[in-house]
Formats: sequence, structure tokens, C-alpha cells
Amino acid sequence: MATRQDSTERLINMPSFNQLDAHGRLRHLISLEGLPADTIHQLLDRAQTYVRRIDERPAQSHALTGCTVANIFTEPSTRTRASFELAARRLGAEVLNLEIQLSSRMKGETILDTIHTLQAMSMDAFVIRDAQPGVCRFVAENVAPHVSVLSAGEAHLSHPTQGLLDALTIIQHKPQLGDLTLAVVGDIRHSRVARSAHHVFTALGIGELRIVAPDALMPESHEMPGAKRFDSIENGIRDADVIMMLRIQKERMEQADIPDGDQYFAQWGLTEQRLSLAQQDVIVLHPGPMNREIEIASSVADGKHSVIRQQVTNGVAVRMAVLESVITTRQLARGIA
Amino acid sequence: MATRQDSTERLINMPSFNQLDAHGRLRHLISLEGLPADTIHQLLDRAQTYVRRIDERPAQSHALTGCTVANIFTEPSTRTRASFELAARRLGAEVLNLEIQLSSRMKGETILDTIHTLQAMSMDAFVIRDAQPGVCRFVAENVAPHVSVLSAGEAHLSHPTQGLLDALTIIQHKPQLGDLTLAVVGDIRHSRVARSAHHVFTALGIGELRIVAPDALMPESHEMPGAKRFDSIENGIRDADVIMMLRIQKERMEQADIPDGDQYFAQWGLTEQRLSLAQQDVIVLHPGPMNREIEIASSVADGKHSVIRQQVTNGVAVRMAVLESVITTRQLARGIA
Amino acid sequence: MATRQDSTERLINMPSFNQLDAHGRLRHLISLEGLPADTIHQLLDRAQTYVRRIDERPAQSHALTGCTVANIFTEPSTRTRASFELAARRLGAEVLNLEIQLSSRMKGETILDTIHTLQAMSMDAFVIRDAQPGVCRFVAENVAPHVSVLSAGEAHLSHPTQGLLDALTIIQHKPQLGDLTLAVVGDIRHSRVARSAHHVFTALGIGELRIVAPDALMPESHEMPGAKRFDSIENGIRDADVIMMLRIQKERMEQADIPDGDQYFAQWGLTEQRLSLAQQDVIVLHPGPMNREIEIASSVADGKHSVIRQQVTNGVAVRMAVLESVITTRQLARGIA
Repeated sequence: MATRQDSTERLINMPSFNQLDAHGRLRHLISLEGLPADTIHQLLDRAQTYVRRIDERPAQSHALTGCTVANIFTEPSTRTRASFELAARRLGAEVLNLEIQLSSRMKGETILDTIHTLQAMSMDAFVIRDAQPGVCRFVAENVAPHVSVLSAGEAHLSHPTQGLLDALTIIQHKPQLGDLTLAVVGDIRHSRVARSAHHVFTALGIGELRIVAPDALMPESHEMPGAKRFDSIENGIRDADVIMMLRIQKERMEQADIPDGDQYFAQWGLTEQRLSLAQQDVIVLHPGPMNREIEIASSVADGKHSVIRQQVTNGVAVRMAVLESVITTRQLARGIA
Repeated sequence: MATRQDSTERLINMPSFNQLDAHGRLRHLISLEGLPADTIHQLLDRAQTYVRRIDERPAQSHALTGCTVANIFTEPSTRTRASFELAARRLGAEVLNLEIQLSSRMKGETILDTIHTLQAMSMDAFVIRDAQPGVCRFVAENVAPHVSVLSAGEAHLSHPTQGLLDALTIIQHKPQLGDLTLAVVGDIRHSRVARSAHHVFTALGIGELRIVAPDALMPESHEMPGAKRFDSIENGIRDADVIMMLRIQKERMEQADIPDGDQYFAQWGLTEQRLSLAQQDVIVLHPGPMNREIEIASSVADGKHSVIRQQVTNGVAVRMAVLESVITTRQLARGIA
Repeated sequence: MATRQDSTERLINMPSFNQLDAHGRLRHLISLEGLPADTIHQLLDRAQTYVRRIDERPAQSHALTGCTVANIFTEPSTRTRASFELAARRLGAEVLNLEIQLSSRMKGETILDTIHTLQAMSMDAFVIRDAQPGVCRFVAENVAPHVSVLSAGEAHLSHPTQGLLDALTIIQHKPQLGDLTLAVVGDIRHSRVARSAHHVFTALGIGELRIVAPDALMPESHEMPGAKRFDSIENGIRDADVIMMLRIQKERMEQADIPDGDQYFAQWGLTEQRLSLAQQDVIVLHPGPMNREIEIASSVADGKHSVIRQQVTNGVAVRMAVLESVITTRQLARGIA
């Protein structure tokens, strides 16, 4: 725990890091925090052009033909790895899948040696998921000027493409964000999804952002400024337009002062009955993978208010938009495209 | 053992599952059992157009450009995974390799969540090998209408593309199946290869199908109706036109009341001497990987009657035919192609 | 140790193996030993055409469209695997990545069964890294006439594409090899990089080749004929034009009669101070991965004399040249291209 806290403090105390280039264009995507609303809107608009129904041919282009994207994940078979891989390949890029835990390299220098070695094989972007906070930023601060770094999820801190796909999904259904009440429910404390949601919806100006969790799963009091805190799901989702359920991990239920399995569901699970407290046209999101009958009832997950599958489809579109944006911007800067 | 038997019973008792669509066209390929001879012949004819000598350029097309095939295997490095991967890519499809054991997911719902998540990234086909019987069918019953499911080997029950490649290999050498005697020799009881052979050669009307095994390796008496049973290899392969040897696994030799290594070879191995009991122009098949000098003598495996390498080449061609058939049929149905 | 020595002896005693075809063209690349200087120069010239700055688009062609390269590595995430994969794909080839330890297969026949099975799926080249000496050659002696075998590193014996990329890197900076003094420093005894350097620079006629190591890390006295031996780094690198540092493995420092970590660096590390003993325009190579502050100071690794990143870039170019050379030669022989 100390380690996590320390790392967080260390990051908080780091001088601010600019993800935009000198011309204000997106170069890296490591966090949605502080990203201009315009930049976010441009990415979402671009992503929307890549959305297809799942029974249609997926969107494809040759925008990144001749480019190479290195996918660096600690495990090979995550949905996010698959989503980034498909996004890159449907834009014509080559993808190099690498199963490496950068942060396990002994010293800072050796993370960089790995990155510089790959960079020397001609890479346009690194997509990185690593257990340790700060790895993405550290890499971003040290790559060559033409290379971009995209976070695919960083500890409990940030999951920017998830934040974007959540925003896209909500806007598709309810474009007037300023009028909406969004309730994020569950293990907020340990969730990079919740933090990225806070970043993106703060930037886009959502009407009201609620965080709804038992005390043990609430973030520190200084975190997520502007969000309203609720300690019961009934109060938290009442009249909400959008509910975002989070995955709760078994370990959390054991460690923390919160009830286990069935009891958690009884107190905190999103059931159809509870859902009736929200707006009639409420939509329900979940980043996956779901624990059915723990944080969400199957009837809700598969019900008419659920947009959970659409989130996945939007995820590929958002990653296409981000990859295309950062890489083609660099190419213009290099006079290639 | 109880588990296997139970699962088998469960499958046997499942209401029949139609792999064809409403127009009688192949949609899924999970078992060859009950598949119309016409459908099989069409697949074999198509596969034959994809067969090349190994020193020629492999057949390629753009039939599946823009399509995505998810290869879901529990281990990454099987020959069947490689064969499906090459088949899909030589047709122009993107392949997403995933090392996931679907059946290890805790509940039925979570298998579906994995599948629905992948499907939401736009998939045209799932190729699945899983240890547990029924997984492929369960997935097939739950995918979207435009998605096909292909089994890459299911427990001891079914390995349909293996059955097709065996049929193609035999027909290439001896097209008059009605006149042939085929002897399948070895561990029939635990073999999906033997069961798929029984299905395909029953459908195509082979002259005589023999199953040849020690008692401990024979299937239940109600299984494989129509096959003649032999308890000695000498009697079983006498005058045979085609001999299909099966792999015997060490565990089987230890568990069952059958002799070990050298002794197994002495009693059940296919030697040149024994091979002389068959027809002069007999051909020998083996699904691989072989245990040389256990179920088959090296001199036979590498000898002039062996068509074992041709089976592998035909395997890629058959998988191209199956992938192309199910995916382009769905595309026509969707008005895409 | 006995095993290694035995294997080495066995290889040394094997009748010589010709990597060229009947027309004197490169067919396999398993060792640089005995390769004609002309062949090496042709490969390096071709490789040079594929070199780009890392901020340029990488070189690409369709020379190997329709070809398939099997990458057989015992571990998936090595830099050499990535380099070969990118090289093949940037030439338009399909790459099949297989994580197999060929030498762990029980008998010689089963290595061949694996290879013949893959070959039957239509392969143009096998790229193999295996722990056991002799595997590449054994495979090369048994593949079909149209198939090539490329070593991606063989025990302590050979790493031919590394030797070529080292040569290319040196020639880019100092084309007059006959005038140069090259010092190879560190664990020569266990290094395939050092042996391939000895092969290639002997063939190309370097002015002076020095091997510089503590006694425990020197090769046997009959090895590396023509090289001058030095037992101090100061003497070894004095007036050198090129210094090639080798990676030292912790196990070696523990086993052998040589000092550990800091002490090794104190006695054998390449520091800026020591570097000043060499020629003013000396260049420093390292095959990677580096142990910073053990065999090389960070200030040297990242300093103005270092060409370590250029080696990596050249590695992709060299592998493109080798793959293109062996495969297109076979295609001409087969009348395909």
C-alpha cells in the first residue's frame, strides 16, 4: 500500500508533463487530465467516423501503411491489447506484440535501453500497459521526437482510451453532456477507469458527476475535485442519466471493510429494481470484464439500458482515432506524409 | 473419467444443433456428424483448388480482405493453430491470436462475455480449441447471426477440419470411396480424429470402415455404428486400401490394460512387415504428431506409402475452404460482398 | 561444461557443411565461418540500401509477397525475434511466430517431424534460435531444396546476422577495414557474438583483431586463430579504431575466477577514461542488452563514440538483405519469381 501511495505522491509531485507538441497537437496520450476539450472533441469526432455496426465490415484505411506500432503488455491476452492491435492493423500499420514488463527491468536505464532498442527498429508509437505508475510518462519523456507513447492503462491512475470510449458512448446516446448526471459506482478508489472518467467529463463539462461507493472504496478526499460523493447506491443513482459500474476485485472485498460476494451484491449490486430509481432512459456502462451478480445483475448487463457492448466497439474506433492522430501529426512534422 | 463420460452423455442428450443456415448453407463447423454429403463435397472441391506443391507459391486470394478471424487456443504453438492462421491470412483476413482457455472462465456467462466482447470488435469467425466438450457449440448458439464458429478440435469428440483433410487426402489417391476399405488403428476410444473420420466417411459412403484397437482403447459399443471392429492389427489391416494410424499417448498406456512402449509397438505398431498384409497400393495416414517406433515404424512413416506430409498441406487448403465458405456466405447474407 | 565442450567437439568434427547452393549462391546462413568475402560484401551492400534514419519511414518492398517465414524461438520476446519479424514483414512476407524449443523434442526424428510439418504448410525460410548447438545445421540438412534456414543465434558458437550487422556498422564509419584495429572485450569464451565477429572480420580482412579478456573468459587456445590476445583492457584497447564490448552474465562472474559487479567494472569496464586510450575517432559497439556500469559506463554507452543504436537499426536491414537473398534465389531456382 505504501508503495502505491508513494508512487502516487511521486507522480503528483512531478512537474507537469505536456502531452501536446509545440503546435498544440496531441503527441502522447498518457492521461486525460488537463487535456483541452477541443482536443478531446476532435478525437471523438474522428473516432465516430470509424464506428460501424458489428455486422458491417469494420472501418479500414491505409493511413498508417508503412508505420509500426509496438504493443507492450505484461500479459498477452487482454481485451485492450486486442483492441489496440485491431485498431492499428485496420489503419494499415504493422503491429509488434511484445510481452514485456518494462518496470521489472532493474534500473531506469534498462527500461530506456529496451525502448531505445525498439525505437531503433523504426517505431511510430509505443502502446504500453505496465503495473508501475510513471512508466508511460518516463518513456514518453525519453523517446525520439517522432515517436508517440500511448497508455493502455496505468495502475489505478489512468486509462485514457477507456475514458474516451466512455465519453463517445455517452455522447452517442445523450449529446448534451451539460444536462447529464453521471453516477460512477463501485471501487472508485482503485479504479483507473473512474479517474479517467473524472478527467474527461470534467474537461467536457458534464452536468453532475457522482462517485458512489462504500467508504473503504472511496478515493482520498482531495481526489476527484468537483465530484459529489454518495455512500449508498440508491441515493447515488437516483435520477441519474448515465450509470457507470466498475469491476470490484475479490481481493478488495477481502482486504477492505466491505462485504463479500452475495452481500456486496445485496448492498451495492446494480439490479433492475435499483435501476428504476434512475431516469427512465438511463444508460448503463461497464468497462469489463464484469462480475455478474456481484457488481451488476445479468438482467441489467444484458438489458435494454446496457450499452456495454457498444463500449467495446467504440474502443476500437477511439484507438484508431488516437493512433491516427498522433502518428500522422508526427509524419506531417517530419514531412513524410 | 466420470467427467468425460458425463460431458459426453450431456452432449449426446442435447437437442440436435444445426450447423447450416436457413438456406442450407454451412454456417458453423463444429462436427461432421450429420453434415450432408453435398456440403462435404463442395468443401473438398473448393479445398482442392487451394492445394499446391510445397515448392510452389501457396494459393492466395483477397476473398477475406477486411475480415477478422479470432484464433482462440489454450496453447499458442500447435500445428492446428498455425494451419488456421496461415489459411486465414492467405485469404487476406486479419488474424487475432488469443491464448485463452474459455472453459476455465467460471460461469457460462463469462465465456459469453469474452466472446461478445471480441465480437463487438468485429469478428467474422471464431476458431476455437478448448479442453471441455460443448464449448464450441455453446459459443455457436450465442454469437451474432453474421459470425461463424469453427472447431479446431474438441476433447475426444470432434475435429472436423481433420476429418475433411483426411477425406481430401484419400480422395486425391483413391477417388472411388465406395470401393475402399479404411482401417483406423490405435487409440480409437480417446480420439477425436477417429470420430471425425467415422462421421465423414459414413457421410461419403466408404466401402468398409474398420476400427482396430486393443479392447481398452475401443469406444463404447454404441459408438461408431457401422464400423467393423478388430482386435488385432494383422486382421484389421488385411487387404486395406487405406490405413489411418492414431497417436497413442503415454498416459493411456500407463492407465489402461495395454502394454507399454516397445511392447505396444511389438503388438500394435505399423511395421513394413505388417503393411505388406494390406493392398499393394495402400496409403498410410497419421494426424500427427507421431510417436515413431511406438505406433508407427519410421520406415513406414517416411516410406512410399505414407501420405502424412500431404495431409498437412491439405490441412491448410481445407481450412481455407471452410473459412472462405462460412464467411463469404455470411457476407452475401449481409449484402456486403 | 562437459556437454558444451562435447557439442563443440562434435560440431568441429562434423564434415564441413556448405551453405551455398550448387551455383555458389547463399542458401542457408548458419555461420559466417568460411563464407566467401564476396558473398558477405553483397549482403552488406544490399543491407545498406535498406538502412534509413529512425525518423524516416522504414524501407519496404513487396519482394517476399506470398512468402512465409517461420520464426522459431524458445522465448517470444527477444530483440532478435522482433528484428527478424519486422525484416520479413517489411519485405511483404507472412511471419509465423512459434515458441518452440526444437532441441527439447525427444529424438532427432521429432525435430524433423516438427520442421517437415511446418514445411508442408509452405514455408520459405526457418529462422531458428535454439539452446542446443547443431540444431540449425541439422534442420538445414533436412529441409526441402526450396527452403532456407537462418540461425538467429546458436549457443556460444554463432550469431551470423549479428556478425553482419557489426560489419555493416563498422564499414559505415570506417570503410577501410584493412587499416583498422578492432578490440573485442569481455566474455569472449562464451560469446557467439565474438565468434561471429572473428569469422566475418577474418573473411573481410581487418587490419588487426584483438580479443581482450580475463583468463577465465578467454576461449581455448586453438580458437580464433589470428586474433591477438590481451589480458588487460588498457593494453587491449590502446590505439584501437573500434571497440566491441560484450555482455557479461552474472553467472559467469560467480562461477569463474573473475571479480563481481563493481570490481569487474573497476578492472574491465569501458569508462571514458579508458576510452581515451583508443584512437580519437574510435567507435564503440555492444550487441545488447547492456549491463550498464558493469561492462560499460553509461556515459560511454550514450556518448558520442557509441554506435550501439545504429547497430540495432542495421540489424533489421541486414536481416532484410539475408531473407531477400536466400528466398528470392530459391524462387529463381524454382522458376517462380
